[in-house]
This record gives sequence, structure tokens and C-alpha cells, in this order.
Amino acid sequence: MEALLRQSRAMCPFLNKTSPATLRAMSMSTAVTHTAPGGGAMSNLQIIARRCPVMGKALTVQGARHGNPALAGAFGGTRAYHAKVPKARLHTNAPNQAQAVDLPSARREHAPFAPPPSNKPAVSQRQSPAPPPSAATAAPFNYDGFYQNELDKKHKDKSYRYFNNINRLAQDFPRAHLATAEEKVTVWCSNDYLGMGRNPHVLNRMHETLDKYGAGAGGTRNISGHNQHAMDLEGTVAKLHAKEAALVFSSCYVANDATLATLGSKLPNCVILSDSMNHASMIQGIRHSGAKKVVFKHNDVADLEAKLAALPADVPKIIAFESVYSMCGSIGPIEEICDLAEKYSAITFLDEVHAVGMYGPSGAGVAEHLDYETYANGRSTKGTVQDRIDIITGTLGKAYGCVGGYIAGSAKMVDTIRSLAPGFIFTTSLPPATMAGAKTAIEYQMNYQGDRRLQQLHTRAVKESLNEMDIPVIPNPSHIIPVLVGNAEVAKKASDLLLEKHQIYVQAINYPTVPVGQERLRITPTPGHIKDYRDHLCQALESVWNELDIKRTSDWAREGGFIGVGVKDAEAVDPLWTDEQLGLTDFEQDLKAGRGALGALENVLERKRVQVLQAVAAAA
Amino acid sequence: MEALLRQSRAMCPFLNKTSPATLRAMSMSTAVTHTAPGGGAMSNLQIIARRCPVMGKALTVQGARHGNPALAGAFGGTRAYHAKVPKARLHTNAPNQAQAVDLPSARREHAPFAPPPSNKPAVSQRQSPAPPPSAATAAPFNYDGFYQNELDKKHKDKSYRYFNNINRLAQDFPRAHLATAEEKVTVWCSNDYLGMGRNPHVLNRMHETLDKYGAGAGGTRNISGHNQHAMDLEGTVAKLHAKEAALVFSSCYVANDATLATLGSKLPNCVILSDSMNHASMIQGIRHSGAKKVVFKHNDVADLEAKLAALPADVPKIIAFESVYSMCGSIGPIEEICDLAEKYSAITFLDEVHAVGMYGPSGAGVAEHLDYETYANGRSTKGTVQDRIDIITGTLGKAYGCVGGYIAGSAKMVDTIRSLAPGFIFTTSLPPATMAGAKTAIEYQMNYQGDRRLQQLHTRAVKESLNEMDIPVIPNPSHIIPVLVGNAEVAKKASDLLLEKHQIYVQAINYPTVPVGQERLRITPTPGHIKDYRDHLCQALESVWNELDIKRTSDWAREGGFIGVGVKDAEAVDPLWTDEQLGLTDFEQDLKAGRGALGALENVLERKRVQVLQAVAAAA
Repeated sequence: MEALLRQSRAMCPFLNKTSPATLRAMSMSTAVTHTAPGGGAMSNLQIIARRCPVMGKALTVQGARHGNPALAGAFGGTRAYHAKVPKARLHTNAPNQAQAVDLPSARREHAPFAPPPSNKPAVSQRQSPAPPPSAATAAPFNYDGFYQNELDKKHKDKSYRYFNNINRLAQDFPRAHLATAEEKVTVWCSNDYLGMGRNPHVLNRMHETLDKYGAGAGGTRNISGHNQHAMDLEGTVAKLHAKEAALVFSSCYVANDATLATLGSKLPNCVILSDSMNHASMIQGIRHSGAKKVVFKHNDVADLEAKLAALPADVPKIIAFESVYSMCGSIGPIEEICDLAEKYSAITFLDEVHAVGMYGPSGAGVAEHLDYETYANGRSTKGTVQDRIDIITGTLGKAYGCVGGYIAGSAKMVDTIRSLAPGFIFTTSLPPATMAGAKTAIEYQMNYQGDRRLQQLHTRAVKESLNEMDIPVIPNPSHIIPVLVGNAEVAKKASDLLLEKHQIYVQAINYPTVPVGQERLRITPTPGHIKDYRDHLCQALESVWNELDIKRTSDWAREGGFIGVGVKDAEAVDPLWTDEQLGLTDFEQDLKAGRGALGALENVLERKRVQVLQAVAAAA
Repeated sequence: MEALLRQSRAMCPFLNKTSPATLRAMSMSTAVTHTAPGGGAMSNLQIIARRCPVMGKALTVQGARHGNPALAGAFGGTRAYHAKVPKARLHTNAPNQAQAVDLPSARREHAPFAPPPSNKPAVSQRQSPAPPPSAATAAPFNYDGFYQNELDKKHKDKSYRYFNNINRLAQDFPRAHLATAEEKVTVWCSNDYLGMGRNPHVLNRMHETLDKYGAGAGGTRNISGHNQHAMDLEGTVAKLHAKEAALVFSSCYVANDATLATLGSKLPNCVILSDSMNHASMIQGIRHSGAKKVVFKHNDVADLEAKLAALPADVPKIIAFESVYSMCGSIGPIEEICDLAEKYSAITFLDEVHAVGMYGPSGAGVAEHLDYETYANGRSTKGTVQDRIDIITGTLGKAYGCVGGYIAGSAKMVDTIRSLAPGFIFTTSLPPATMAGAKTAIEYQMNYQGDRRLQQLHTRAVKESLNEMDIPVIPNPSHIIPVLVGNAEVAKKASDLLLEKHQIYVQAINYPTVPVGQERLRITPTPGHIKDYRDHLCQALESVWNELDIKRTSDWAREGGFIGVGVKDAEAVDPLWTDEQLGLTDFEQDLKAGRGALGALENVLERKRVQVLQAVAAAA
């Protein structure tokens, strides 16, 4: 068997190119739209195998022998799509190594340069390894066919993305227009969580900077693109996270990728321990680093500890994880991970992309929020959770409403990344106006709690309504409202119906952003989603759920629950923002004291816009 | 010897981690500030070896035996720094592969997890492989020490970068202020080549868009970040390059990285042929692709053909190269490479980052410029050089004055990258105002030739003056003026002197942006660098060259010339923009016809701003 496998690998260009781990993962993951020849779900490996001239034939024969029932009720009332499928792997183990080839000896080394399977007659491939085709005789590679094939695959597995033309209106937040100004919709899935993209202080600062310093930076940070806006923004970010230094990148995708790739490749024998649900940018960074990667189960501290304990103390280790996982809204066990990092001499790399602006008394994120009182009262932050994190990464493009990303940490760490990371060094700086606007947004949110508190209140209200309506919200303690659909085609259909029939925009989230079988609508309230909008959303979801006959929470419960939905006797998930932190206990007291609803509400929201405005102006 | 090497590799964590190709490169490259124990330049491998507890001792003994002369005249009048050094490799062969580690078996597989050399006693390491230290006993890894060491290395080899605080003033282009508004300087190294960062049409469009659509996109292209501005910009880019489609990224660094990584990893058995002077973003993309990489000599078509001919016809191949190489100003043989691509069934990937806006009657770049008449006269572009290029990449952050990057090509290719590239999918879109501003800039430059013509005239004037002054310009046919210094420390000192004494900002370009020994000042004129500024620059350079006793062209000539400077009987390098294309022949005729200097000049510059303004407004 082993010998056969080795022989197959040598002969077959697909097996030859694919790692055992990937093959294993493909054999275990399934695409629900296909049935295997013997009935039941077909694994992704089987689907690929059908395209192979050798294996395809064998599978056909096998199928004919066992009968090949058509997929019953693929779409509509029968809910056949809800068959549970194992989680698709977001982490892959595909090798990713560029090799310099020394020609022509490399030709021997890497020969045969097997043509793509489609160009190869089935029989000869099976019988003996084909000789390398010579340049003179072989047909040239069909690039157009390759592109078409890649696109066909995306269409076939329903992961092809159709972009919606959404023009968010600053003066009519959270509304947008579609292709024409008349077609108005309400946006319910933007990551401009706090509406800072339309904040007048941010816009004013950007207008001023644009006029004075122009549209672009005009160079890399090293060559004419370094300026007071970059310095000031980095100073503000460092202050926000109570760190020595910060560094701004084109995006947090680039910040994560560049920082992990640089550290992982430079730290000798580095091992990176990565949460299984980490964002694509971290996965890419780790892959690009060439470091050893150890994936631990999502938010599983015991699993992480077991993996840490198996590594020698003197090997450098990075634990890479997130505070708020954006697609399910779960929150990482930051303090416990800090404990483990200290115990096993690892450094911590925390992505706060979906948390900055949203948590903590200054909006520094979940790490700050965990020591809410300390930060709120200006006590010493030494030893706080945020203080214990080595590297924090965040974005300027979500709650801060602009674009760009950053890292914050010790001065030496930041200077090392500044000096070594190609993704930082060899790219044009963000425009002065963007940096000035982002700085204003951070400062505004450092001084004003109202937006994030109101956002939390709106989140609570929507979650409560949907729970009452038996619409399946994946439970979590954060501001994200993931509504489970469980099928790519239905999720897209639900999104389309919401847009066309109800003028509500919620994008369907499909693979590869979430695993196959866990497709969802991801709803993100903002401070602008007042009661009228929320009621409209709930009615629209009810209508769509009925029209498409999408499973309710109780349906999932009858099947024993799925990814937290409909799980019997599950512990209630408390929101990270407590009633007290939201000011709700004060609100009650204010009401009892006869202060009136408006006065009490203003107290909750800490509505000190005038003071904030002055503070921002003074800091400018 | 072979057995000894194998044994060494198993024992030594450095050798174990470093590929033979890298070791070879390090042994051949030298850092001029070090002398080898036996005198002469010390290779980079020897420098690292000195840090090793085993080899360090051996080298010390060797050095004592041979004597160890101190480096004579490291800086100042003796010009010892000008000793020629081999070109540092910008392409490396370091493996870059993330491996999923299956613990604890992996621990055996990868054991010993050797500690960093500094923590290891010299003798035990040499005598026998140390047992893997247990978590309980080994000293934890010293992260701070690691950062410090990396920074020390940068300081030591003079590649540590000091950023200058340059605030470019839109209303006083090409001037900027330093830390305070009073300290004014003239910027001579910005990549805002045409001053579009202060163009009033661009700024007006950005102001309008900012007010109407806010500061940021609020999401990825798939989730609420797709809008009319993205569609319009991509439509304009596609039209600019006469391609079916285009795709916009955060930057062209990301565009190059994401596109090459995606194609290289998805095309079966792909080989990427890469010009040896390619930009870091392409080198990273190729590395990240995992494809086989073949580096061909800079602009050497014969070398490229030899390498193509050695590959089978049916293997997919990408030839990745640039039109204008930004640090030396050389221009790629685009047409010849297209011929080879057709002959050997390869696709072409052309980076026009430093050429878009600058060449061609529409500013589409060098590929368009090569068929100047065809494009200028609106003839069919079928079969032109630009038409034959499969993938063009460009930036919105240099001649177009904003920020962002793009690819353009066939609809299928673009859709494939849109569907598969994580660096495109998982990142926040550019802000609406940025995209609207960039679109306006492209359209403006499509309709107006004056800026790029004037830029070329100013470039010619500066190059002529410097040549007359015996100041060494590296010859090239483009708009870049690389002035050779040849030493990192001197280049920085020259840049500092220009800034402090002469209020002129030209950044020193050192390794790794250029090879060691080829350090330079990179001067980039703009349409705003009128005669007063140019005269001031030339006087300042003369003064700095004298003060620091930097080599002149004639000095290089006495040594036989270096990278094109002072090469005897060298063929003159004609600028890509001919006199006729610049309108200089018309200018003469106009003068003769008694039209007057101003009228003739306006003819040269095609000064039709009013019409352009109307065209841009109409297109909005």
C-alpha cells in the first residue's frame, strides 16, 4: 500500500503537488451539492478525483455498480442542504516555497514537468510515467482555459462572489444608495461600526489636511513619505494602547502579514501557535514566515497549553490570536493566554481589529476592557492585560472609519519591524489626510464612550428580538450578530431578497470566509440603527425566513444544536459590556430619582460632545 | 568533506536553517566596513561566522596568525570606501515555507530545537549535538536581545533608516516644511512625479466625495466596501491600458504580491521568470507563490531566452519584469520580451508603476509609448506592445498623486484574481474619496500631455547640467536621475548636508533598496521644478560633492567606469521621449514662424487646461 502510494505520488502531478495533510483534509471535507457514487456526501477529494482521467473512470465504474441517486430536494422546502458537514479547514498545510531553479539541471530534478491533467490521455498516465514533453512538440499551456476552470469551480461550489454596489451616504447614515441615487437601502453589515466615516470632526480634519498637504504622501516612509501626520498618528496609537511605540501600514492585512512573516522568519527556529479561527492575514503571515506553525483549537486554552508544553523553553514562540473573531463574534481568552505566554516564555500577538474603538473606556479594545475600572479611572496600567500583550494589531478602517492598519508594542520590537519588513518598507505611505483623519477618530473615541455604548445597546436589542422570533443567532458576547443559514446558495438568496424586497443590505458570508455548512448573514448594528431601522430589519428577516423556509433556532435544537445554535441547556453567553459598564444601572437609578428619561439616557451615553470637540481641537 | 558538511548542518542551528544557495551568496557578498583576518574584504558569511561561538574562535586564531590590519581611511579624503564590491543579491533563495507541526512527534522530527548561538557554550556544541533542552531547565528565549541584535546589525552595516519629517505643501509645490512650518525645503525625490497630489481637479473631487460618501469604505469589497467609485476607477484603469478589466488593491505592493502569489500557486507546475532587478513586491509575490523561480539577468533578452528554451512548452510560465526600474531608471525591453513570451508560450507580467502617467500619449506607460503614434492618433491598438502584455500593474500613488495599486488584463484573468487572492479579498477597500480622486487624476493625464512633457524637459535639463559639472549620473533613458555615491555612510551624509545646509531634500538610497556599493541620491524632477530650483540644486550638489570629496564621473572613468558611470566610449543613451514626441521640433518651427516663445512653449506643453477641465467634469 505504502509502495503504491509512493508510486502514485511520483506519477500523478496532483498527488505529487499536494501535501499529505491537505489530502487528508480534502478527504474529510465535503461539498453538499455532490453525492458520492455510493450515495451520501461526496468528499472534496472525490470531487477532484472525478476530474482526473484515471480516477474519474474508476469512480464512474464504482458509481454504476452502486447506483447513483440524484440529490433529492437540493433547494427549497425539503431542507436537504442542512445535512451537517464537517468544518472546512481554513488553515492549510500547502507548502509555499519559492525555489530558485538552476537550469537545465533543475529540469531533471523537477522533471517530469507534467502537463495539467486535462491535457493528458488517461491510459498512458496510468501505465507509466509520461516522458517530459519537449518544447518543440508539446501543446502550449492554455491560460484562458485555466482561468475559466478556476471560475467554473467557484460557480460550481457557490463560492463565486457577486459584489453589491453600495454607496454609503455620509449625510444619511446608515443608509446608502445602489447604482442610482434613488434606490436607497439601509446598510446592516458595514464595519464602520461607529459611523466614524461620517463623523464631522474626522471629515473636517481631512478636508483641511487635503487642502494643505495634498492627496497623497508621494513616497514610501523612507523616501519623502514620512511626515508629521505619520508621526502623530503613531504617537496616538501608542498612547491608545499604552505602549512605547506603534507603526502604521497600508492595512491591517499588511500589518499582520508583514509582522508575522518578519518575526517568524527572523527569530531562530521560531514556532508560531495560531488559533484555528485566525484571520486570513495572520494565516498568510505565518505561511510567509517559513516558521513552524502549530494550530491550536479555537479559544481552547488547554489545547494551547499542551502544545506549548511540548516545545522547549528556549525556542522563540509567538501565540497569534484575536480578541473579537469577526465572523462568529467569539472573544479570545486573552488573560489566560497571557498567563500561558509567561509560563512558557512565548510572546503574544493579539489582533484587535474588530475591537478597537468598540471596547474599553478609551476604545483600545478587549484587552483594555478587561481592566475597565483601571483604565476608566486613570490608575496605573502596569500589569494589566493590555500591558502584558507584546504585540497588538488594529485597523483604522473599521470602527475608526478610515483605512489603514497598525502594530503597537515595545520600541525595539516596532523599530525591528520598521527596519526589516518589506511590506512596510517598499510601499507608499498612507495619504496625510487619511492619517490625520484616523488620528482624529481615535482621539474622539478615546474621549467619548457614547457611540460604542449605543452600538452595544442596539446589538442587545437586535439579538433579543431575533431570539424571540426563533431566528438563529450564533451566541457570542460581542457586537457581532451572526445569523445562521447553513448553505451558500440559500444565504445568497436571503441576502438578495433582503436587498431587493426589503431595501436592507446584509451580505451573505460564504466559504472561504466561513467554513462550508456554516454560511450566515452577519449583521452589525451601529449607533445609527435606531428603533425604526431595527424593527424593519426584524420584520424583513421574518419574511425572508418564511419565504425561503430557512431553519429556525428550534429546528436546529431538534437536531441537537449546531455551532451554539439550539444547543440544549447551554450556558447563557453574557455580553462583554456589563449593564454597569453600559450605565444601565445608573439609568435605572436616575429614572427612580425622577431625572426623566432623556436626562437618564444622556447619562448612559455620556453625551459630552461639546467637551469632546474641544478636547480634539485642543489636541490638534 | 561532504560528510563533514552534512554533520555540521545537523549540529549547527544556523547552517541547519540556511539554504546552500543562501550560504553561497553570503560567502560571495561582502560588507566593506569589515576586513577579513587575512586582510581584504570580509564576506558576509565570515561576519556572521564571527558571532558563532565555535567558528568565531577559529577565525580569531586564524586572524592572529595572519595579522589583522585595521581598515585604512574608512571615511573622508582617502576614498577607501570606493573599493568595488560584488553586487548584493536582492533575490534570495531562502526557503519560506510554513509547516504545520504535529506535536510531539514533530519535536523529534525537528529536534534538536537548538537555542540561538549566543546561549550555547562553544565547546559542547562542537563536540556533540546538544540534547534538546527541557522546558524546565533551558533559559527562555531573549526576545529583547533579539530585537536589539537586529537593530545593532542595521546600525553596524549603515542600513538603519532615519526617516525625515517632510510635509509637502500642496499650495507651494514642490516645497515642504520640516518639523515646523518655518523650516521650508525643496523636495527633489518625491514620486508625486507630476504634482497630481495638489491638482485642483483631484482635490475638488476628493472634497466632494468625502462630504457625500464619508472617510472610509467601511468594509471589504465583498462586504459593503464595493461601490460606484471602485467600479468607475476600475473601468477607467481598464480603458487607460486598453484592457478588458482591472482590479484595484490597497497598493501596488499588494497587487504584485497577491497576483504573482495567486497565479504562481494555482497554475500547475508554474515557473516564474523574474528580472534580477525586480521590485521587492514581485520578489515577495514569487516567493509566496511557491512556484519555481528562474531569475534572468537584468534586461538581458538572450539570458531570458536561454532560460525559456530550457523549459517545456506546456508548462505555464510567467515573465515578470518592469518598464521603468525605479532606482537606476533603466527601461525593460518590453517588445522583445513579448516576442519571447509568444515564442515560448509564456504570459507577461509588466510592472508599470514608475511609468504610468509619465509615458505614452495617454500616460498609460512605456508599453503605450512604444506605439506612440498609434495611440496618439486613435488608431486600432490591436497588436500593439501594450495589447500584447497579459498583465499590467500600476500605482495610483506616484504620478497619479493618491494611493493604491491595480492590475489590468483580460476579464477572465482579473476575475480569477478577484476570486482567489486573499490580499484582495480579506482587506478593507480604498476610501471612496481616494478612488474618485485617482480616477480624476488618470483622466486628467489621459487628456493632457503638458505635465509629463515638462517633467521630461526638466529631467533633461538637470541631467545635462550634472553631466557638465562632472557629477556622476547613472545613464538611463527615463525620468529618474540616479546620482552615484557608492557608500551608505557618505550617501546619508550628502543627503543630510543637502537638507541642513541647502534646504534641499533628496533621500539617500542604500541597501537593501540598492546593492551595497551602489548607494546613490535619487533625484526626481517634476513640472514644478522650474529653473530657479534646478540651478539651486546643481549649486548645492557641487558644494556637497566638494565638501565630502565624493567621486566625480571622471574619477569613476579613471577606474574603468562603474554601472554605466564613466564608461569609456559608451554608447549615448537616448531618452525614451524623443524631441519630436516632446514637441521640440514643432517648437523650433513655431519660433521660426515668428509665433513667439510663449505661444511656441504652450504648443509644446499642449496647454489646454480649460478643455481638460471640461472633459473631466463631463466624465464625472
